[in-house]
Amino acid sequence: MRIRLAFSSTASSLHPSGTALQSSVTRSILRPAPSILLRRRFNSIPRRTTIQSNSLRKVLQKSTCRYDTTLTASASFSTMTSSFHPEQARVPPALQSPNPPITKFKIGLCQLKVTADKEKNILHARAALEEAAEKGAKLVVLPEIWNSPYSNDSFPVYAEEIDAGFDASPSTAMLSEVARLLNITIVGGSIPERSGEKLYNTCCVFGPDGKLKAKHRKIHLFDIDIPGKITFKESKTLTAGESPTIVDTDVGRIGIGICYDIRFQELAMLYAARGAHLLCYPGAFNMTTGPLHWELLQRARAVDNQLYVATCSPARDVGAGYVAWGHSTLVGPFGEVLSTTEHDEAIIISDIDYSQIELRRTNLPLEKQRRGDLYQLVDVQRLNAQ
Amino acid sequence: MRIRLAFSSTASSLHPSGTALQSSVTRSILRPAPSILLRRRFNSIPRRTTIQSNSLRKVLQKSTCRYDTTLTASASFSTMTSSFHPEQARVPPALQSPNPPITKFKIGLCQLKVTADKEKNILHARAALEEAAEKGAKLVVLPEIWNSPYSNDSFPVYAEEIDAGFDASPSTAMLSEVARLLNITIVGGSIPERSGEKLYNTCCVFGPDGKLKAKHRKIHLFDIDIPGKITFKESKTLTAGESPTIVDTDVGRIGIGICYDIRFQELAMLYAARGAHLLCYPGAFNMTTGPLHWELLQRARAVDNQLYVATCSPARDVGAGYVAWGHSTLVGPFGEVLSTTEHDEAIIISDIDYSQIELRRTNLPLEKQRRGDLYQLVDVQRLNAQ
Repeated sequence: MRIRLAFSSTASSLHPSGTALQSSVTRSILRPAPSILLRRRFNSIPRRTTIQSNSLRKVLQKSTCRYDTTLTASASFSTMTSSFHPEQARVPPALQSPNPPITKFKIGLCQLKVTADKEKNILHARAALEEAAEKGAKLVVLPEIWNSPYSNDSFPVYAEEIDAGFDASPSTAMLSEVARLLNITIVGGSIPERSGEKLYNTCCVFGPDGKLKAKHRKIHLFDIDIPGKITFKESKTLTAGESPTIVDTDVGRIGIGICYDIRFQELAMLYAARGAHLLCYPGAFNMTTGPLHWELLQRARAVDNQLYVATCSPARDVGAGYVAWGHSTLVGPFGEVLSTTEHDEAIIISDIDYSQIELRRTNLPLEKQRRGDLYQLVDVQRLNAQ
Repeated sequence: MRIRLAFSSTASSLHPSGTALQSSVTRSILRPAPSILLRRRFNSIPRRTTIQSNSLRKVLQKSTCRYDTTLTASASFSTMTSSFHPEQARVPPALQSPNPPITKFKIGLCQLKVTADKEKNILHARAALEEAAEKGAKLVVLPEIWNSPYSNDSFPVYAEEIDAGFDASPSTAMLSEVARLLNITIVGGSIPERSGEKLYNTCCVFGPDGKLKAKHRKIHLFDIDIPGKITFKESKTLTAGESPTIVDTDVGRIGIGICYDIRFQELAMLYAARGAHLLCYPGAFNMTTGPLHWELLQRARAVDNQLYVATCSPARDVGAGYVAWGHSTLVGPFGEVLSTTEHDEAIIISDIDYSQIELRRTNLPLEKQRRGDLYQLVDVQRLNAQ
């Protein structure tokens, strides 16, 4: 019997800017064992590697061993000695969030008008980033698909080869330059990405040095069918990403999801277990699911995982083929809406303070109350990388 | 190395009414293998059994094997052939919901005033059940701790020995009689339960034949500390339950949680994977977390798992030691509030139609879009029972 498991191949892919697509710190979250790295090199760009189920069991065993070793050493997890094994509710056990250089800062959410003119969209996004930075934002988030109309017809036309360098990708070239010039971190919304024969819906994260720190390809494609309301099949043109994306930045450990990714609570749980402070979801919900679910899902991810959630939507264009709901929002770790807007173009500037995460986790110590004896969430890639 | 795993011992415990504490259908959800049943008998009432980690790996392997066998045989899971292995996002793979005798019915949620007089509380609850049934409810839900004030001082005083028969438990005796006389299913809120030296916060479910169909002991105890707002430690007096509780009734497969249980998304995910149509959470949120989280959590569990969620709170008594938020609510599988109320005493009668579950799962086929290659939720007891 063989089980197919996914490995992220991004750790070994170099971006033209010279930086690894995942930072060294991000790689340390995954901590691939040398044997697995060898296996990756052996298969050229092995996006998916077939391994014996035996190996899965070995890593499961390793994971449990490691916990057993660290348990007695950790003073901060005194309740982990509970017979309910809260630490086993995440496999591998949850990581502590790191201490980033900046723990209190302003975030900017740019709810942008998007047109059919890519060059105009890039200039417009640049101006918004500059305005947000001028207003004090150290982290700025852009909307999903901000350089192109949101349609299956447009994706191939507007797609850029991000891995081929900035000449082939004017949108990410602008993000890199602006991040460096303004000394900010940018979660660059998403753009259609071309890679070989495939198209992705891709979010790039740039650090204040202008380097690409992470690249998230939408994992859950938006295939929806509510007759008479909204029908859309991203899978007609797009390919789903192969890996969750979490990245250490100056402004915290950030987990990335794109739009429909937010519906899958497992992804947010997995990011929380990898120590995320903040989840960023560039997203364009629509006029049906927007009013029903957009705020609900953000608040749910925040309160269940006790971390910050930021979303950024395009502004509404009622003349567009796909009409976005808007309502970009920042939610705090108690599930509270800290800042939001309606559907018009807007730049939200709002305060983030990571000490609130610790406070809420002290008020409600959910992590120590989970029942690892009854349920366990397995992070397959992190388990595999041990 | 040894791993401790929990087994439910309720399947072999008989209630004085002569019915097993979990129905035969519920037992079939867990499907304990003969070897495990033997092991249970070997250790007298083995609430927790220590087994070799080897055994866990064996059942993991079995689980995967079983999927491999059934995959090709199942026509209804055509998208399960995806290389993303959505079926592996739940371990063991998710079960289909059964077809209950009644799929469209009225539910009654009795938001009751609770006093310090137990006899009065029982008579009052009985009258409410009768009124709900008269208004057409086939399923009626009562609040958390409806026969006693909600306090650590009261729990030992008002506790009843449910397993010792109806003479020792006037509250459940009333529920059984009323269920039989009115031909309804009752999710009997919760009462403090005494069992040997231990106290539990316990919900009993009765069928229209008056038999106890299931008994849920609150799994996650309410230990909260928000200084100046709300501090409470149920664990001072109560013991946590050992098992999730899901039960097949005439009105569907129902997963039970009590109040704080609703904060743990894993429990709802696990119930959904066991084929639940409806989750019932008797609960008494407070004046701090009530306005912040009560509706949010219900709607989140409903929309993420695409099933019905019903909650039932005591009415608010501002003179009580613990002031309940009220706001009992029914939420549909699209996360929509179907019926709710304020904080005064009320009986909500609302319609449930399980065809809505199928409709919403067709609109948004989340189960087929999950990424079992990236994350997996393990139901430890069900896996163990294979």
